[in-house]
Amino acid sequence: MNTPTSRSDALELDQKDPIRGSRESFLLPEGVIYLDGNSLGPLPAAAVTRIDEVVQREWGRGLVRSWNDAGWIDLPERVAGKIASLIGATADEVMVADSTSINLFKLLAAALRLRPGRRVILSVLENFGTDLYVAEGLAILLGDGVELRLVPTTEIEKALSADVGVLMLTHVDFRSGEMHDMERVTAKAHEAGALVLWDLAHSAGAVEVELDAYGADLAVGCGYKYLNGGPGAPAFAFVARRHHEALETPLWGWMGHAAAFDFDTTYKPAPGVKRLRVGTPPILSLAALECGVETIAAIGVERLRAKSVALTELFMALVDQQCGGYGFELVSPEEASRRGSQVSYRHPDGYAIMQALIAGDVIGDFRAPDILRFGLAPAYIRHADVWDAVAALRGIMETRAWDRPDFRARARVT
Amino acid sequence: MNTPTSRSDALELDQKDPIRGSRESFLLPEGVIYLDGNSLGPLPAAAVTRIDEVVQREWGRGLVRSWNDAGWIDLPERVAGKIASLIGATADEVMVADSTSINLFKLLAAALRLRPGRRVILSVLENFGTDLYVAEGLAILLGDGVELRLVPTTEIEKALSADVGVLMLTHVDFRSGEMHDMERVTAKAHEAGALVLWDLAHSAGAVEVELDAYGADLAVGCGYKYLNGGPGAPAFAFVARRHHEALETPLWGWMGHAAAFDFDTTYKPAPGVKRLRVGTPPILSLAALECGVETIAAIGVERLRAKSVALTELFMALVDQQCGGYGFELVSPEEASRRGSQVSYRHPDGYAIMQALIAGDVIGDFRAPDILRFGLAPAYIRHADVWDAVAALRGIMETRAWDRPDFRARARVT
Repeated sequence: MNTPTSRSDALELDQKDPIRGSRESFLLPEGVIYLDGNSLGPLPAAAVTRIDEVVQREWGRGLVRSWNDAGWIDLPERVAGKIASLIGATADEVMVADSTSINLFKLLAAALRLRPGRRVILSVLENFGTDLYVAEGLAILLGDGVELRLVPTTEIEKALSADVGVLMLTHVDFRSGEMHDMERVTAKAHEAGALVLWDLAHSAGAVEVELDAYGADLAVGCGYKYLNGGPGAPAFAFVARRHHEALETPLWGWMGHAAAFDFDTTYKPAPGVKRLRVGTPPILSLAALECGVETIAAIGVERLRAKSVALTELFMALVDQQCGGYGFELVSPEEASRRGSQVSYRHPDGYAIMQALIAGDVIGDFRAPDILRFGLAPAYIRHADVWDAVAALRGIMETRAWDRPDFRARARVT
Repeated sequence: MNTPTSRSDALELDQKDPIRGSRESFLLPEGVIYLDGNSLGPLPAAAVTRIDEVVQREWGRGLVRSWNDAGWIDLPERVAGKIASLIGATADEVMVADSTSINLFKLLAAALRLRPGRRVILSVLENFGTDLYVAEGLAILLGDGVELRLVPTTEIEKALSADVGVLMLTHVDFRSGEMHDMERVTAKAHEAGALVLWDLAHSAGAVEVELDAYGADLAVGCGYKYLNGGPGAPAFAFVARRHHEALETPLWGWMGHAAAFDFDTTYKPAPGVKRLRVGTPPILSLAALECGVETIAAIGVERLRAKSVALTELFMALVDQQCGGYGFELVSPEEASRRGSQVSYRHPDGYAIMQALIAGDVIGDFRAPDILRFGLAPAYIRHADVWDAVAALRGIMETRAWDRPDFRARARVT
């Protein structure tokens, strides 16, 4: 691809985009260029009617009967089945439940049980906060030599020693967008006798993931980023079928019981991933997640990934072309196969620059200490949006519009 | 009160009901008598507009900015503060997070840490499934002599031996509606050196609870029953302020970190109950919960409790009067001070009888093996509804309308 040199070049690329129509499946506010779908995906058009139906018809008129009549009781499994198709898993290997953090806790504890004698959870210093905190909290809770060991990403393979029970990695790094080679890393971990737990927060719905084909053991993922499930949407968890029989999870709730409504005094786990359910699931949020997942599944991961690569390449090329000399240092890998659906730059004034962009309705986000993060979600971002975003960035740098006390003052929490 | 002998007597009681207007705050389907608000509370009228606003304006147009601009980030605390007023706690002692089951796990683990050397979780055989499963799962996870010990409710005080770290009880029993004397039991446990963890699932929003006045240590509760927060609404957790400093919870997530957005590699718990947050909360479900809680708080617990007692007394008197001789055995305590907001009867054909009632739009529920459960939520149930429900029950018994194969076949899951 030759880098476009005008907005009309970008518009031409949009004309040729085989999934250009999918933007219509989202309700995006007029005039906003939304490059933060990796933090919170936008509202799927289908969700408005669906949530209203869940609220007024199912809850309001159906009342408690809707657990059966509207199928709420099976909603986690139904949504999980649809997510499975996006991550190369079969429906009975995936469950929707709780948050990513809680699912990490379940699966890390289960992993240690599956590898008795191996007490180390190995991860990387660059991993997302919650992944590390969950592991740390579990290690302290369990005691007995259980340890979270952190190494730089570059040292993962070297660190796969004989005491490692589980390697926990986020497939696409939340800061840099760097993507691990899932197949290779999984194979290396298996050679060393360890399991791998993949966090797919920045992968599911944006990049191709083939959990079964790559022999993955365990995975968790997020519903509110590229799956567009709404703020705080429930998360998912994957367990390869070969681990189902021996799967021992630590959070035992009635929804994961083999016969929840018998109210036995002792716990009997439901088969397979059904035991990953714990308490009663939040139906409104689940219904929204279903809309998001269906919208993404209808487009297809392969086409999404192809466009994602095109958008991130375009973004990087345009930043080079338009914003060279302003001190942006590319953090994301240049090689497409090692990059997720975002592009990140380091800049000493990154925070203020991002505030200036947001004030101009180009919404990306900032990650401390100095990273500007641009999520290029292929389902609704156009090539022209990329053009406009980079043009806005150039304008801000040219005029030093970011250099204002209110943009420099850190107040934003997300 | 003289037991009414006609529907017009019941209507007269409704005329004198000081909170008769509060029914208008709920959208109840025409013709349905809803006696299952102890399973799923009905839709608060305010929730329809509010959820639509959260979906279309906050999520749709605000996008990720709504974490700050719409106050999503503080929503759990905001709702918790409103729940605090319903359970005799202060706002900084309550947090909304996850499910009741997950909160039980957090607080049981914390309780054992607060009572080192005492390894027994004491509870009763009659407790709700999930409470027991969570404790059992935690005991197995921790090993090291941690044990869930179950006794009949009548033996609680005798069982408070020196190895009991925490007594875990559901304040109002889900089957019988029997209510523990929270003040007395808490004092007895404290005398024995144990903490008490109260499950308020069937209390909050229906009976008066004075956690601080009774010296309670820990509590959890449910958002979707008498708080009318919608199906699977997030749950709450209470920790008395005197335990905050030493509070060690086992589920460490980024939302419970002292500085979530610094993305430190190590966990530093936020102050007090803020550390009970784990992952990202489900905002749609939380927004609905806020509407439910506000609706209940506006009525006031004292008035709700007074009416609840009147309704349950009326129900029992009318069943005696109208359905004597049909074999209903009262399971709930006759003494008002020992009864929550429900009335339960044992009947060998209970399941089929409840199906017949539901088919006639009188919705109660059934709990195995033989219990018919009638929730009399004071915020929206009228004295005339009680009359009509008992009249329907009498009709079903007179005509043996329940004696049909489809009513006998167990299919219902909730």
